[in-house]
Amino acid sequence: MSLEQANLKVALPSSVGPFPIPLRTLMGPGPSDVHPRVLLAMAKPTLGHLDPEFILMMEEIKKLLCYAFQTNNKATFAVSGPGTAGMEMAIVNLVEPGEKVLVGVNGIFGKRMVENVERCGGVAVIYEEPMGQPLNPEKVEGLLKSQSDVRYVAFVHAETSTGVENPAQALCSGAHQYKKMIIMDTVTGLGGVPVLIDEWGVDVAYSGTQKCLGAPPGLSPITFSERAVAHIKARKTKVQSWFLDLNLLMGYWDGAQARTYHHTAPINACYGLHESLVLLAEEGLQKSWARHKTNAKTLEGELTKLGLKYLVQEPYRLPQLHSIHIPSGVEDAKVRKSLLTDWNLEIGGGLGSLAGKIWRLGLMGHGSNAKNIAYCTHALQSCLLK
Amino acid sequence: MSLEQANLKVALPSSVGPFPIPLRTLMGPGPSDVHPRVLLAMAKPTLGHLDPEFILMMEEIKKLLCYAFQTNNKATFAVSGPGTAGMEMAIVNLVEPGEKVLVGVNGIFGKRMVENVERCGGVAVIYEEPMGQPLNPEKVEGLLKSQSDVRYVAFVHAETSTGVENPAQALCSGAHQYKKMIIMDTVTGLGGVPVLIDEWGVDVAYSGTQKCLGAPPGLSPITFSERAVAHIKARKTKVQSWFLDLNLLMGYWDGAQARTYHHTAPINACYGLHESLVLLAEEGLQKSWARHKTNAKTLEGELTKLGLKYLVQEPYRLPQLHSIHIPSGVEDAKVRKSLLTDWNLEIGGGLGSLAGKIWRLGLMGHGSNAKNIAYCTHALQSCLLK
Repeated sequence: MSLEQANLKVALPSSVGPFPIPLRTLMGPGPSDVHPRVLLAMAKPTLGHLDPEFILMMEEIKKLLCYAFQTNNKATFAVSGPGTAGMEMAIVNLVEPGEKVLVGVNGIFGKRMVENVERCGGVAVIYEEPMGQPLNPEKVEGLLKSQSDVRYVAFVHAETSTGVENPAQALCSGAHQYKKMIIMDTVTGLGGVPVLIDEWGVDVAYSGTQKCLGAPPGLSPITFSERAVAHIKARKTKVQSWFLDLNLLMGYWDGAQARTYHHTAPINACYGLHESLVLLAEEGLQKSWARHKTNAKTLEGELTKLGLKYLVQEPYRLPQLHSIHIPSGVEDAKVRKSLLTDWNLEIGGGLGSLAGKIWRLGLMGHGSNAKNIAYCTHALQSCLLK
Repeated sequence: MSLEQANLKVALPSSVGPFPIPLRTLMGPGPSDVHPRVLLAMAKPTLGHLDPEFILMMEEIKKLLCYAFQTNNKATFAVSGPGTAGMEMAIVNLVEPGEKVLVGVNGIFGKRMVENVERCGGVAVIYEEPMGQPLNPEKVEGLLKSQSDVRYVAFVHAETSTGVENPAQALCSGAHQYKKMIIMDTVTGLGGVPVLIDEWGVDVAYSGTQKCLGAPPGLSPITFSERAVAHIKARKTKVQSWFLDLNLLMGYWDGAQARTYHHTAPINACYGLHESLVLLAEEGLQKSWARHKTNAKTLEGELTKLGLKYLVQEPYRLPQLHSIHIPSGVEDAKVRKSLLTDWNLEIGGGLGSLAGKIWRLGLMGHGSNAKNIAYCTHALQSCLLK
């Protein structure tokens, strides 16, 4: 029997065709609105992952990421997976079985760090603050003083589950005092608030493309200090993930070596990241930070006028992510559904213990603009008055 | 000092701007030429990863993948990473520390399976054939007979490093005879040659988007049998990867549950995969297989006329990937460079022990067409006559 007449046991789904995508305004905790230039870059013809032209683009991405992260780290590139893969990459490369990691936890992503530490055989020493509160650098120092066998300090810079900006610089300087290595999650931070990898002395930091960089989700920018790279080279055990093994990956990403195939990079996603980084460079990092801050103040004024209260106290509020208490008597799901279906506007709900209690409003990347603020204020007011 | 006047220690790279992408013809081992409809789908506006419309699309992707894989497995979806992540997902979910996996190795990707088994604490029992030769089901059965403590059989269906199609159905029936679970890599197989997951009784199979599905790289379609899902639920140890833990992921992908956030899916890459699966459905699976086969015969005729010899003997040649010996006296790098720069045509070189010895010509997905065959033949002839 010919292939063409082969009998298929699993039939075609009944209705099949191109999928119409509605045009939303994305003001949740990410993904955020993507600039049309970034979307168009994603549609350019695919290149091979070892094409010299693509390798040139990789080199540009590395340089642009060094600018965004404010680092001279050579091992600065994009993990071929979402921020969750970036977190796993950071932790499984650094931490060997039995090693202790002090993890600052004040939200869902701090908890996720603990899970990752434990799943690679590390021992997590947990320092916890309630969701919505910042981590306290003095408490971290106190713990480091009493637990001398801790080797790493891990924390989330910009907690996406609450909108808290943890005092990253102070946390780093505390860790340095006790000679610990630092793993920092700045998925929601990069591009929206100062992230100064070299100045703060962070050993590994990772981010995401779909927050303040304003590209679609799918890649995780990451940077390893020279000390971290040396530390990983000197491991006694193999990194448990082949896909995320830094030593193998650098054969593909390191320009100083002859490029060797490791995995097939997500070419078109890299086009999008590149274009989003060009947009950031065109604006300038400081102007991007300033814009996020100015727009945050405007939104804060509008939300306050609506009688809404913030979960997080100043100065720990992230300008790119506003967590507000859902007013009593207001139904979370109903409002968010109305915003989505009547206004094509996405905002975020709460996670974990904050589910049903807060909304999370993002003003990230390209989406941090006057139009989104005015629209969101108007739509929210309309829903609350219903 | 205001944010806008902040002093940056790492300056902007000197030349920054949109990156011009050359238009290549991709006839290597993947990525393959992407259909314009797929590229355009990637440029549609980003949706939130929990948007009801995106969830509808996820459901369609699952159904279309079930058709492509010829399976009724509920746990059929796309891993948010390249095929390498799909391989790791398959292995780290199934295999627990100390368990034995018989791995059939006749190329680079079989070797990579061994690495993955070992990195999650499994014990790889290696059955090896030379690169370019197929795996022999009788030898597998012989090994299973003598090694009763083997729990899984893992092999690559379509070996991308050599162009060998391993006898998947016979390998599966041998494994079933000894009641082993089966892990199958069909990164280069899906859509190009019959892949009959339910009929063959495969427990876990994974693929890639950038081969015979003709989408850009970045996602790994995967399918788990009900037996595999139950097996994973009954694990004694946690899956070492949080990112790739099936039990956690199904909270996001399983339509029967309330969707819970696990990670942010690469939305626009999913648009591309969806459109590529719609294209496959419009053509029909059998017609796609038949087209790959017919075009392979045409290319084979042309290459034979040029005096080129195949690495792989029939009936083990993949129609979507042709490995040919580089004629003696011909310089590998020079020809491939000329094809790329003078003809904008990418073909693949050899990997591992075949580096410098073979070329790999892909006719995959949308790229398996008369125009590519004629162009590649013409360009190759021109380079060889130089």
